[in-house]
Amino acid sequence: MPIPYERTIHFADTDAAGVVFFANYLAIGHEAYEESLAASGINLSAFFRDNGVIVPVSRSEAEYRRPLQCGDRIRVALAPKMLSENSFEIRYEITRLTGGEKNAARLRTEHVCIDSASRARKPVPAALAAWIAGASAP
Amino acid sequence: MPIPYERTIHFADTDAAGVVFFANYLAIGHEAYEESLAASGINLSAFFRDNGVIVPVSRSEAEYRRPLQCGDRIRVALAPKMLSENSFEIRYEITRLTGGEKNAARLRTEHVCIDSASRARKPVPAALAAWIAGASAP
Amino acid sequence: MPIPYERTIHFADTDAAGVVFFANYLAIGHEAYEESLAASGINLSAFFRDNGVIVPVSRSEAEYRRPLQCGDRIRVALAPKMLSENSFEIRYEITRLTGGEKNAARLRTEHVCIDSASRARKPVPAALAAWIAGASAP
Amino acid sequence: MPIPYERTIHFADTDAAGVVFFANYLAIGHEAYEESLAASGINLSAFFRDNGVIVPVSRSEAEYRRPLQCGDRIRVALAPKMLSENSFEIRYEITRLTGGEKNAARLRTEHVCIDSASRARKPVPAALAAWIAGASAP
Repeated sequence: MPIPYERTIHFADTDAAGVVFFANYLAIGHEAYEESLAASGINLSAFFRDNGVIVPVSRSEAEYRRPLQCGDRIRVALAPKMLSENSFEIRYEITRLTGGEKNAARLRTEHVCIDSASRARKPVPAALAAWIAGASAP
Repeated sequence: MPIPYERTIHFADTDAAGVVFFANYLAIGHEAYEESLAASGINLSAFFRDNGVIVPVSRSEAEYRRPLQCGDRIRVALAPKMLSENSFEIRYEITRLTGGEKNAARLRTEHVCIDSASRARKPVPAALAAWIAGASAP
Repeated sequence: MPIPYERTIHFADTDAAGVVFFANYLAIGHEAYEESLAASGINLSAFFRDNGVIVPVSRSEAEYRRPLQCGDRIRVALAPKMLSENSFEIRYEITRLTGGEKNAARLRTEHVCIDSASRARKPVPAALAAWIAGASAP
Repeated sequence: MPIPYERTIHFADTDAAGVVFFANYLAIGHEAYEESLAASGINLSAFFRDNGVIVPVSRSEAEYRRPLQCGDRIRVALAPKMLSENSFEIRYEITRLTGGEKNAARLRTEHVCIDSASRARKPVPAALAAWIAGASAP
């Protein structure tokens, strides 16, 4: 399992209802994905740029269970899994740590590896496959 | 049916892969919801502030079908529907208009009406129910 | 003078204080710049990508004069001006239209044209110089 | 001096030019301000909500000196200073740590303490004044 990602909720994450804007939970989940990739030795700047082969998010799902306020401390745990030779999913559990541990959201993203010019499906690159295998190991 | 919402993709919507960041599709869908509520006479500033009764997004789903670039013109069509006395869904179809009409994404959000202090479920307010009924009329 | 840009304040623009987050005024100003470039025939996707010559913002200044709430209608007027062969400024006046016209903010950005690899200064491209000349004409 | 704030550049911070969007430097500076306030014992959620007295940003300035890419590690050092009984400034130095320490940006914000209803100026609250005094001590 990857090391969980922790961070504090920032003012810029919030909206006029006083809590984190719903779409920003997905951005926070993506941060945890980035941190975990970087920890496994993947160069993020090269990885997320369009270098011919890209791995965009093809689906996302989120279940928002508790509001998060500016200053709240959160932890994001990830569990990636191969779905096919060309695709994988990541499940995210966002836990609010401030005021006792409570599940704040559950997210899921699907990622498909494609040739950025032709949009044809491509095998998941080896370094990424190793991250998925390592990150999801028991 | 509500009047579709159109806008241009901005530079701030994009990420280093050169296209709209996946979480921002949901923010764009929410803009269409806001515009449609405002067109029906609902005061947005009061509606989205915490005034005792709030209507947060409880679930979201997105299927990303085509990338969107800075300058692309898009149209967002919405279809809301009551799910229970306390909740409703909105389905969104995002169409890329630049370079011929193509479906760019399909989104879905679920919204639950609650008392912001007790978190107890409350009936959807009348003005919002009227918007849902009117917006989803044949 | 370029045609002023109008739009409505979105929920995603706001923060937990109930008004537009201060950094988002600059993003809104940039939208007006983009719309004006597009209206002059410049292809935004090509313009803002790194194609060897880039025109990043080198300075920004903002004076925040009035809060903006979700649903407020605003107008952004721009005045660009050449500063040197390699650089120009844009001044932005953001007017809140909801509840009577009031100045909401004054912004200023400086832009420098550079070679993205060497970071050496380059002359402002002709199409952009024409936009600056036309947009700032009396 | 407050403890410098460090973080990694996220994909969501970037734009289609492949680097951090100019307005997001200001959001990153604000994060450092929040972290420093929290470290001094100020409750962020209460502080940034509208509780009658608010401390909005009244001016911002930024000098963008180097681009920041996804995965870059940065450090933000802050220096706050009282400007009057009702206002203060914060200067921010953003250093890119990846690939050798280099100054990436210099920011400055001005903050004015006001009554949120009347917009009349109010003295800076004691806890905030203590933070400014402590944070800017030699």
